[in-house]
Amino acid sequence: MDYQFDTAIPVLERTPGVMSALLGGLPDVWLEAREGDKKWTAREVLSHLIHGERTDWIPRVEHVLAHGDRVAFPPFDQEASIHAGGEQSIPALLDTFAKSRQQSLARLRELKLGQADLARTGRHPEFGVVTLGQHLSTWVAHDLGHISQVVRVMSRQYKEAVGPWVAYLSLLRSE
Amino acid sequence: MDYQFDTAIPVLERTPGVMSALLGGLPDVWLEAREGDKKWTAREVLSHLIHGERTDWIPRVEHVLAHGDRVAFPPFDQEASIHAGGEQSIPALLDTFAKSRQQSLARLRELKLGQADLARTGRHPEFGVVTLGQHLSTWVAHDLGHISQVVRVMSRQYKEAVGPWVAYLSLLRSE
Repeated sequence: MDYQFDTAIPVLERTPGVMSALLGGLPDVWLEAREGDKKWTAREVLSHLIHGERTDWIPRVEHVLAHGDRVAFPPFDQEASIHAGGEQSIPALLDTFAKSRQQSLARLRELKLGQADLARTGRHPEFGVVTLGQHLSTWVAHDLGHISQVVRVMSRQYKEAVGPWVAYLSLLRSE
Repeated sequence: MDYQFDTAIPVLERTPGVMSALLGGLPDVWLEAREGDKKWTAREVLSHLIHGERTDWIPRVEHVLAHGDRVAFPPFDQEASIHAGGEQSIPALLDTFAKSRQQSLARLRELKLGQADLARTGRHPEFGVVTLGQHLSTWVAHDLGHISQVVRVMSRQYKEAVGPWVAYLSLLRSE
């Protein structure tokens, strides 16, 4: 599927509501779950998403518009991102994410980009020349990846509890 | 994690809201997406979830209470399940699923099961003897698996559109 503003934006608009529906008021045992020592909790995923709104998605759009592919994007700091939410509660993180996303989408609309702008190029610190369309598509896929991550981490807490049904639950098995 | 009613039920309560937040009003291009010929659309996933409320989750709890492991559960018909929603629109399917889930959880509470009941045994047509706790844990993990499935199918529509970022988006790559 090609990137289209009118099909991509509805996904971006929905992510905060999906996270709220999934995580709001959920018992701590789910919110604090990890897959492994280095893997993220739901809180860390929300922090990472908030950090992305502040430093990645719209800032890189504006970077492309300002510099084209002459200046590389500042690198995204994964490690800092998971601490961006500080000590906020889950409801506060959900609220901050929802507001940050609203602001990002308001700014995206303000920029009045069209399909022709998707071919504009920027410079990724690792990948080299990338297009604005690739960056905007990644925003959508990245949201969906983190929704999937949160539910995967939750589901794997029951890997033993489901007994033989693990044979039918591919999410509990695959890495 | 062991199955506990007071941590499991909040997940089950949230799934219809998560599906509504994700799919309600979403452009058709996402709702009709598949990963391959035999894979399910979002509509088919919702039908399958509705079929599960009607024929699997509470019916098998009641089967265990009535028959123990003396009589095997009737098999679950996967193929029928994806057509259970008929020609209903996505908003209608979301509404039907939400109401069916509410009824299931009302019935579960009515049964006043306790932790000791989790060791009760039933007979699965394929696996043989299973416990009520394994069945109830599977209900939770199954919900999470289908949320993950819907977002995975959506995200993979952008497998080419994201360009080099596919390297960072494991959901778009893994099978």
